[in-house]
Amino acid sequence: MKAFASVVRLEEALERYLSAAQPRPRGHEVVPLERALDRVCAEDIAASEDLPAFDRSTVDGYAVRSEDVLHASTKAPVPLHLVGAVAMGELTELRVASGQCVRVPTGGVVPSGADAVVMQEHVRREGHVVYVLRPAPTGENVLHRGEDARRGEVVVWKGTRLRPQELGLLAGLGVVEVPCYLPPRVAVFSTGDELVPPDHRPQPGQVRDMNSYTLSAQVAKLGGVPQFGGILPDRAGTVEQALRDAMRTADVVLASGGSSVGTLDVLSEVIPRLGQPGVVVHGVAIKPGKPTLLALCDGKAVVGLPGHPVSAMVVFDLLVRPVLEGMLGLRPQLRGPRTVPANLVAPLAAPADRDEFVRVKLRWQEEVLAAEPVLGKSGMITTMTRADGYIRVPMGTRLEVGSSVEVRLFD
Amino acid sequence: MKAFASVVRLEEALERYLSAAQPRPRGHEVVPLERALDRVCAEDIAASEDLPAFDRSTVDGYAVRSEDVLHASTKAPVPLHLVGAVAMGELTELRVASGQCVRVPTGGVVPSGADAVVMQEHVRREGHVVYVLRPAPTGENVLHRGEDARRGEVVVWKGTRLRPQELGLLAGLGVVEVPCYLPPRVAVFSTGDELVPPDHRPQPGQVRDMNSYTLSAQVAKLGGVPQFGGILPDRAGTVEQALRDAMRTADVVLASGGSSVGTLDVLSEVIPRLGQPGVVVHGVAIKPGKPTLLALCDGKAVVGLPGHPVSAMVVFDLLVRPVLEGMLGLRPQLRGPRTVPANLVAPLAAPADRDEFVRVKLRWQEEVLAAEPVLGKSGMITTMTRADGYIRVPMGTRLEVGSSVEVRLFD
Repeated sequence: MKAFASVVRLEEALERYLSAAQPRPRGHEVVPLERALDRVCAEDIAASEDLPAFDRSTVDGYAVRSEDVLHASTKAPVPLHLVGAVAMGELTELRVASGQCVRVPTGGVVPSGADAVVMQEHVRREGHVVYVLRPAPTGENVLHRGEDARRGEVVVWKGTRLRPQELGLLAGLGVVEVPCYLPPRVAVFSTGDELVPPDHRPQPGQVRDMNSYTLSAQVAKLGGVPQFGGILPDRAGTVEQALRDAMRTADVVLASGGSSVGTLDVLSEVIPRLGQPGVVVHGVAIKPGKPTLLALCDGKAVVGLPGHPVSAMVVFDLLVRPVLEGMLGLRPQLRGPRTVPANLVAPLAAPADRDEFVRVKLRWQEEVLAAEPVLGKSGMITTMTRADGYIRVPMGTRLEVGSSVEVRLFD
Repeated sequence: MKAFASVVRLEEALERYLSAAQPRPRGHEVVPLERALDRVCAEDIAASEDLPAFDRSTVDGYAVRSEDVLHASTKAPVPLHLVGAVAMGELTELRVASGQCVRVPTGGVVPSGADAVVMQEHVRREGHVVYVLRPAPTGENVLHRGEDARRGEVVVWKGTRLRPQELGLLAGLGVVEVPCYLPPRVAVFSTGDELVPPDHRPQPGQVRDMNSYTLSAQVAKLGGVPQFGGILPDRAGTVEQALRDAMRTADVVLASGGSSVGTLDVLSEVIPRLGQPGVVVHGVAIKPGKPTLLALCDGKAVVGLPGHPVSAMVVFDLLVRPVLEGMLGLRPQLRGPRTVPANLVAPLAAPADRDEFVRVKLRWQEEVLAAEPVLGKSGMITTMTRADGYIRVPMGTRLEVGSSVEVRLFD
């Protein structure tokens, strides 16, 4: 028996699978602004008005004509006649003529005639005369109408994950209902006769299911909706029925534990029967994670992941995540994990036929990040709990101490 | 009027405020494992048993005695007698004697007598004889009992933010209810006569409230529970009553917009009245964010933040976040934003008397990250939406092109 005759490299596996699956959002919905954090915007949103809508002072001070105070200094203060004050939140009829100034609060309207605001710390006031102690160039301490966003300008692009600052910008523009993509629904199963739920005491030879928890949490972290499928025995009929049921309500079906070529493997038997075109990739030249099965069954993405907890998490990140990011509708620039540069502090070598993904712990060492490999078998979940991210060692390559590496950070 | 006579440096402000506030969790609760993602663990959790509980094979193959196959090769295969197979999820009575082997599936029990497993790809099988084509050192492809976690060993420390991998580890150990710290409740107010809610059309001179949305989302991102307080006018009585009400149900009260020294400022008048010891810091030597007021009133943290949206977000990140991280119960090593090293691509200079925090956009440039400043006034929220993080330029310092900088990433 020759296993994985069709093993392909990571990039090819991904390219084939994304070409076949063409992941995209299943639709969108309108979300109230206060619940839109971390959702993905489904439309380009343009400013419907200038932001701010009027010239605003950015400080507490005095609106002036900058030409009046061109040569102001502490030694030669320039006296200006104070003709009034702008009230907060109100338009003003005041006008600043040459030799005059008007009191303005932070955020207040800059009256016409003025083209700069002198901070109150830079004047000396005596009754109705304000002595300006410094020059104020045109535009100083003024936020001009439309300077933050101009009417008609796109301010939040389709495919943006909404952060606190995007919510603030939308609030400022009066967008209180945000069109957002519907999140993909992802059914998560663990398969294996040896598995028991975590609240059971395993009999000798049995172990508790971890992958349902890690994979569901990975889905949730990305912004998908995990559907807990539970544990399935290594029986083709049962597995097939469960996956078929899940395909009715989920956009993606993940099943870990059964895609090796072991004698008790059933996923590679069942998945091809679930729909067309069926298996796209079976076997990827990565370590851990080789026994991975990427299928597309009647429009649903179905993925068989290895059973080792670390392998399943790495395969999720490398191969499932890009599919979900497509379904989430994220802009290409926002896909993939956050990556950071680091220096390797121990040598690493990958096998000749597989890219190896090695967990690393990061620490600051003077002005750079040092990446220390966390060694241990891919059955050991503690290699993940002790790590901050992981790096790729290309097949047949040895990375020496001090090598520059790109660390994929855990979310 | 001399403003901010008591302005202090960032580190001193933070040290004074944390010493006064001594932020810590207000209690803990038991959370079901499937809802514990991103929560902070409230106790050291030790393994109550070895993980795994027995020696497991990490591959599909044959359990052997490594001494038997010491010199195995494709040219000189070592024949072993196949005496049986281990069933998945079951204990086995089989024993491997010299010259024998037993079939084992991935995850199956390694039978006694055997000390290594040969992958099925590395044997040739003819009926009941298995020809081993490679040596298998002791321990090869075996995950030993307790190798992932040893009974009694702490596997998840108090103060850990639970990631997918921690949930998996806890599942593996049978911990289905997790003691987690209660999240801090944070009331968020915006003050200012010029403010209207985002669903209102501002009259001339008015602007829509952004800070309620940015600050609430920053609280939520950290794991706190924001309580939307709404907009308050610049009237001391109204503000005082609203903050007092909020202090009854919130652990922290944030109010933006009123802590400058403007004529319409009320926060600096009201906050000292709210309780003991009152104002701890008023004015921090940072740009943006100088007019910041850090108070502790009868055990509640009360913070007045500047009204400019960028300033408020930066002050939140620099001065409020550490307080919330203390209340969240996060381990010191897990506090603060994620930081990454980058090279500055444009020169920057800070004023002589304040550290300046400049938003930057990051991009990969060969093997390093390049940080490009996003310039613009601190009233411009779009300087935040266009940025990935920000850097600190120490007071009176000029950073040249190519300087190594540490970027604080937005969450």
